[in-house]
Amino acid sequence: MARRDAEPDAVHSLNEPPAPTTQPTGVRYVPPDFTAPSLRDAPAARTATIERDGVLPDGFFATTNLPTYVKGADGQWLMPREPRMDGVLVRGADGGWWVREGRRVRTGDAVVVGLAEDGSEGVLVHAHGFVTEAEAAGDFHFMSSQVSREKPIDYGLIARMLVKEKRRGGYVIWVTGPALVHSRARDNLVWFIRNGYVQALLAGNAVAVHDIEAAVVGTTLGMTAEGAPSAGGHAAHMRAINAVRRAGSIAGAVKQGIVRDGIMHACVVEEVPFVLGGSIRDDGPLPDVLTDAVAAQEAMRAHATKATMAVMIATALHSIAVGNMLPAYYEDPQRGLVELPTICVDASEFLVSKLKDRGTHQAVGVVTNAQDFMSILRATVEREVAA
Amino acid sequence: MARRDAEPDAVHSLNEPPAPTTQPTGVRYVPPDFTAPSLRDAPAARTATIERDGVLPDGFFATTNLPTYVKGADGQWLMPREPRMDGVLVRGADGGWWVREGRRVRTGDAVVVGLAEDGSEGVLVHAHGFVTEAEAAGDFHFMSSQVSREKPIDYGLIARMLVKEKRRGGYVIWVTGPALVHSRARDNLVWFIRNGYVQALLAGNAVAVHDIEAAVVGTTLGMTAEGAPSAGGHAAHMRAINAVRRAGSIAGAVKQGIVRDGIMHACVVEEVPFVLGGSIRDDGPLPDVLTDAVAAQEAMRAHATKATMAVMIATALHSIAVGNMLPAYYEDPQRGLVELPTICVDASEFLVSKLKDRGTHQAVGVVTNAQDFMSILRATVEREVAA
Amino acid sequence: MARRDAEPDAVHSLNEPPAPTTQPTGVRYVPPDFTAPSLRDAPAARTATIERDGVLPDGFFATTNLPTYVKGADGQWLMPREPRMDGVLVRGADGGWWVREGRRVRTGDAVVVGLAEDGSEGVLVHAHGFVTEAEAAGDFHFMSSQVSREKPIDYGLIARMLVKEKRRGGYVIWVTGPALVHSRARDNLVWFIRNGYVQALLAGNAVAVHDIEAAVVGTTLGMTAEGAPSAGGHAAHMRAINAVRRAGSIAGAVKQGIVRDGIMHACVVEEVPFVLGGSIRDDGPLPDVLTDAVAAQEAMRAHATKATMAVMIATALHSIAVGNMLPAYYEDPQRGLVELPTICVDASEFLVSKLKDRGTHQAVGVVTNAQDFMSILRATVEREVAA
Amino acid sequence: MARRDAEPDAVHSLNEPPAPTTQPTGVRYVPPDFTAPSLRDAPAARTATIERDGVLPDGFFATTNLPTYVKGADGQWLMPREPRMDGVLVRGADGGWWVREGRRVRTGDAVVVGLAEDGSEGVLVHAHGFVTEAEAAGDFHFMSSQVSREKPIDYGLIARMLVKEKRRGGYVIWVTGPALVHSRARDNLVWFIRNGYVQALLAGNAVAVHDIEAAVVGTTLGMTAEGAPSAGGHAAHMRAINAVRRAGSIAGAVKQGIVRDGIMHACVVEEVPFVLGGSIRDDGPLPDVLTDAVAAQEAMRAHATKATMAVMIATALHSIAVGNMLPAYYEDPQRGLVELPTICVDASEFLVSKLKDRGTHQAVGVVTNAQDFMSILRATVEREVAA
Repeated sequence: MARRDAEPDAVHSLNEPPAPTTQPTGVRYVPPDFTAPSLRDAPAARTATIERDGVLPDGFFATTNLPTYVKGADGQWLMPREPRMDGVLVRGADGGWWVREGRRVRTGDAVVVGLAEDGSEGVLVHAHGFVTEAEAAGDFHFMSSQVSREKPIDYGLIARMLVKEKRRGGYVIWVTGPALVHSRARDNLVWFIRNGYVQALLAGNAVAVHDIEAAVVGTTLGMTAEGAPSAGGHAAHMRAINAVRRAGSIAGAVKQGIVRDGIMHACVVEEVPFVLGGSIRDDGPLPDVLTDAVAAQEAMRAHATKATMAVMIATALHSIAVGNMLPAYYEDPQRGLVELPTICVDASEFLVSKLKDRGTHQAVGVVTNAQDFMSILRATVEREVAA
Repeated sequence: MARRDAEPDAVHSLNEPPAPTTQPTGVRYVPPDFTAPSLRDAPAARTATIERDGVLPDGFFATTNLPTYVKGADGQWLMPREPRMDGVLVRGADGGWWVREGRRVRTGDAVVVGLAEDGSEGVLVHAHGFVTEAEAAGDFHFMSSQVSREKPIDYGLIARMLVKEKRRGGYVIWVTGPALVHSRARDNLVWFIRNGYVQALLAGNAVAVHDIEAAVVGTTLGMTAEGAPSAGGHAAHMRAINAVRRAGSIAGAVKQGIVRDGIMHACVVEEVPFVLGGSIRDDGPLPDVLTDAVAAQEAMRAHATKATMAVMIATALHSIAVGNMLPAYYEDPQRGLVELPTICVDASEFLVSKLKDRGTHQAVGVVTNAQDFMSILRATVEREVAA
Repeated sequence: MARRDAEPDAVHSLNEPPAPTTQPTGVRYVPPDFTAPSLRDAPAARTATIERDGVLPDGFFATTNLPTYVKGADGQWLMPREPRMDGVLVRGADGGWWVREGRRVRTGDAVVVGLAEDGSEGVLVHAHGFVTEAEAAGDFHFMSSQVSREKPIDYGLIARMLVKEKRRGGYVIWVTGPALVHSRARDNLVWFIRNGYVQALLAGNAVAVHDIEAAVVGTTLGMTAEGAPSAGGHAAHMRAINAVRRAGSIAGAVKQGIVRDGIMHACVVEEVPFVLGGSIRDDGPLPDVLTDAVAAQEAMRAHATKATMAVMIATALHSIAVGNMLPAYYEDPQRGLVELPTICVDASEFLVSKLKDRGTHQAVGVVTNAQDFMSILRATVEREVAA
Repeated sequence: MARRDAEPDAVHSLNEPPAPTTQPTGVRYVPPDFTAPSLRDAPAARTATIERDGVLPDGFFATTNLPTYVKGADGQWLMPREPRMDGVLVRGADGGWWVREGRRVRTGDAVVVGLAEDGSEGVLVHAHGFVTEAEAAGDFHFMSSQVSREKPIDYGLIARMLVKEKRRGGYVIWVTGPALVHSRARDNLVWFIRNGYVQALLAGNAVAVHDIEAAVVGTTLGMTAEGAPSAGGHAAHMRAINAVRRAGSIAGAVKQGIVRDGIMHACVVEEVPFVLGGSIRDDGPLPDVLTDAVAAQEAMRAHATKATMAVMIATALHSIAVGNMLPAYYEDPQRGLVELPTICVDASEFLVSKLKDRGTHQAVGVVTNAQDFMSILRATVEREVAA
């Protein structure tokens, strides 16, 4: 599952037969062999000029989240910056390449056109660069599905990854749904925030509303910590929202002592950035919510492009949203290209399969209850740190 | 499931012991007895004045989606207009009451305060007004869960409801997710639109994108009608989006002959209004999408307040969003108060339970595949019409 | 959830207006008022004589799992012994009543006939005897579904129940599926067995096979503890089965040192009885498996009739099987009638709903991963004992 | 999905470089090249002699459901008869090989030993013999999961397969769970039986009980066709069971006019064989039920070994049981080796994944409601036949 950490490694250098980068847990990146005739003789990528803001030329090249190389007029194969799927390749002022969503192209931009992904039109999608040590377990075996509640969850591995990311200054983004707050995993998420395992929190209005309802009223959606309804409980979340609206912002409500604990409180106090993306089902919303979906995407992408690990818990909407923005790898100064560990926790196999079906193939599924996941992961991290 | 149609009935008249309204399928509405001492002697509802736009007074009364009566200074019990859950009661210029989301209150508005729902503070939530003929099936029985894949689906009943709504000029809103397009239920939804069973379509960017991808490229998310991947398929939805962006709008793309069939085409041609609410996971988005969540809510509420029936298919996000806006009843000129039939179709019991857990208790769950639901429902409606 | 323990209470005495039995967590049993005219004047239950082994008379009375009283010729209302649903009432030699499955009636037996459950034909099903302190949380609230992954799991309560059962000598039956072994909850179940929290283990062939595969080969279904396939792994369970077949029995394999750890080992060493019921999908099976379903039911019922608590984990087949045999209450010498706590753990809401749909209405659902459930429950019990 | 039908094809002949068998829908079987040095020079399979009934030698070779070849002392590579997974290879009197479950070996039998599946110890598992025409859809695409509710269901293909099997005298086994009866797919299954699409029905007690309850009482588990509970309904299935017990057998109940319609009635009247395997959760059971799991397996295997197609609907227990017995291919006199089409219908992705995880990798999943599946499949077959 994890693919990266540990010892420094030679930076891979383009245009020469590169040494593979070794990575722990048996995965290493083998760059393309650019001396092979098919690549050596490939043409430079062709571009077309944008004629209208946000409108692409016919035949534009559509990006994936896999390692990609674009051949320039000078014969250099370069990897584009800010890689993500569903974007296009825009030439930068320095001759390098950027991945941009179609809506962000501007009149005059040079955008790569071509459909081939094998380098024959100047763009190479290197789908099989990450190599796992061969297994020789035979052709017929049981339990070969990728995502199943019957498979063991390797909490130790996830815990070690988190601890290593913290130690080496990684950037772990957490993407969470409201089930995390409902089901009292709240205290555990606070613990992860307070202890430096969360570099950004990406969520929606509901996470913050339920969390602040718990802080202000003591319930979530009017349900007590024991799962019972409370008198007048259906209004509790509205009272929480109103309290923050009166304070002007979540940070304001924290500063004024209205919100004294919980996830949002911890983010404010620990200065962990959060992005709350608006949605059609939001009550309120809270003043901090970016109600415009495009603005919310921009804000989340700013974190996704820095990510060295992603933990997605109990949210279909935001997991797929962030999955869309997230490359399947990142470049590390010491270790070269490493796969971007992406953990997706949900109560059903369906979400993880759906996430993979939307292209986030690297996601590792954990099928369990969010409350229990957080509880065991925290205990495992504590043990790992103590060890 | 259905609760309404058929013969006209006396309009119920407030402040006198009202005659119950009878409704088919054994459900009738029994208004409160306002001559009972507890209601007769109840005080008028108290109000507080809003001091800042969008900020509520402490102790505001929070609405539900159940029949509600507010006592005015003149002793009259009136039902508020545009009922929905999670709103507040605002006094109108004419002395009547409106339900408004908290963000919509303006400085100077008079908003009802009080927590009691039993009328003792001037607001009565009449939770048990809809009465079903008593069943006498004993205390112990099997198969008593509300939502289960093991329960039969009464397609005949749903079909008859749709046919009656069409005949009497009802307003049926359809709330749909992209699975409807993926799984080739597309043609059947087109049929319902073309034949007058759809008065408004509420959805997100993805429904329109997949539908237009099918029209323009012939795949959905790059998957052929047989479920196989296609060459370059991962870019197909981006090409569809780009085509519409170039045309300026979906209607433009239809008019220019770029989009020649499908759901959005049918809406444009049949002049069925649609609202596409933006979300954080949208590609594009299409130019017609309301990317601001609050604006999208306003646009959808305009349809929800007119609804006489709601059909929600394969979408957690939009089903809950619209469920939030939707009263559990509506007032019919002929028949008085009738329950608002709400059908929720999903592949798992979880969504319907979640929808009910968010207060849309009247939802009737249908646990099946969206493709199959549409196919059988259409055949059943065709038979019903022929009969 | 739990409803029983604590202080002794007067044994309720039939035929006099009984004092309600109080039970912790706000549940108490209020016996029927047999002095009420409808019961006082009710006739004795009628019986018919069995004419052929295993064939019932028309109009036989079918039992439920609720508290039931049968009026004898002497006017006494007696509760039948070995209550369960789907049985009939057979008069015993001493004039008392037994609940028996239809297949167990013998020629000459006197079996109660009659359909009424309200006492009017001499049989009273007392459906509402267990009374919970009234809640006054209003009519409209969120999160009112009975079973949902979004509801908190009260591990503390379950742990306290287990600890109390152990201290007062209760009889806790555990009903488990193979996911418990696959997913490495194995060590935790061993802990519960070794520490006296398991009075009987009811399962199928697969639980024992996977457990012994883990002991003998080190995999489950050929999957390593990390979830990876192993070379030749698809045969591993067959090698485990063969090893036990050679030893003659599981106990034999333990004694011969072939099986040195795990669930079955712990049962043998700690002398905790187990029943392994055969099924159509069994490999092997192991020699200890009761391949005849009727024989297996008899063996399991012997434990179900003694149960004071039931924990069902990750098995649809056995949970429903044992649910069928299990009364919803039991009679405690000190405390009178108490509800039988029944915890049902599964990864999806569906199983618990299905179990309830089969009449085990008292089941409390826990929607999570079996591995995580066991891990947290054990830690909670350890804390509870330490406290 | 389908892989076989159509034109006759050369029987593949062992020990010579074989011509691949072509099969429709782009799948063909390419036998091993036995002239390759590694196979040509491989030793004959080694055997060990059984010393005790039902106990295997160490190192026994465990079978899979894939095409398998065993090299004899004469250098001939032969395929074993009655292939299935989880068996062993027993030499027959004629020098050929049989696959047998371990419990069926007898003292003196010669059983193959060896772990290698690559032929190097005389046994070859030919895992990749079925070749699909290459797809060239690129490395990155969406919707690549194998089983998903979002994928289209190709009813036309399944219908054509069924019609072809009927026309050419195939042997289609149907494996069904009780949801099929509950949810009123009953009439449609009757239609398939009466029209010759069902060669054997493999199920449990519950299918027959619910079906006969519907015939005798008019409910299933006491639920009416509209899904409502009925008075005294919890006893309805017991009355159905008792009626059959009195009649002595299902066929007796049909002959005596007690059971006049439904699935079991159709099987009796049309002389379609059925096997009802007992289980721990059975009420009754009916007299026809094989309560011994081993006896039930033997009875079902007799049909599984003849199968040319399998349809599994809404049953985890029996789908996995029959999947265990079912080879992934069969040998057709005209067409050589063909894959055995296995359709698995369930409301959730989990069952199909689980079935595959138990080795039935060839299963094609259909994620939908059983009632709807049957309804649409029947209509599609009717159209196919009319065309």
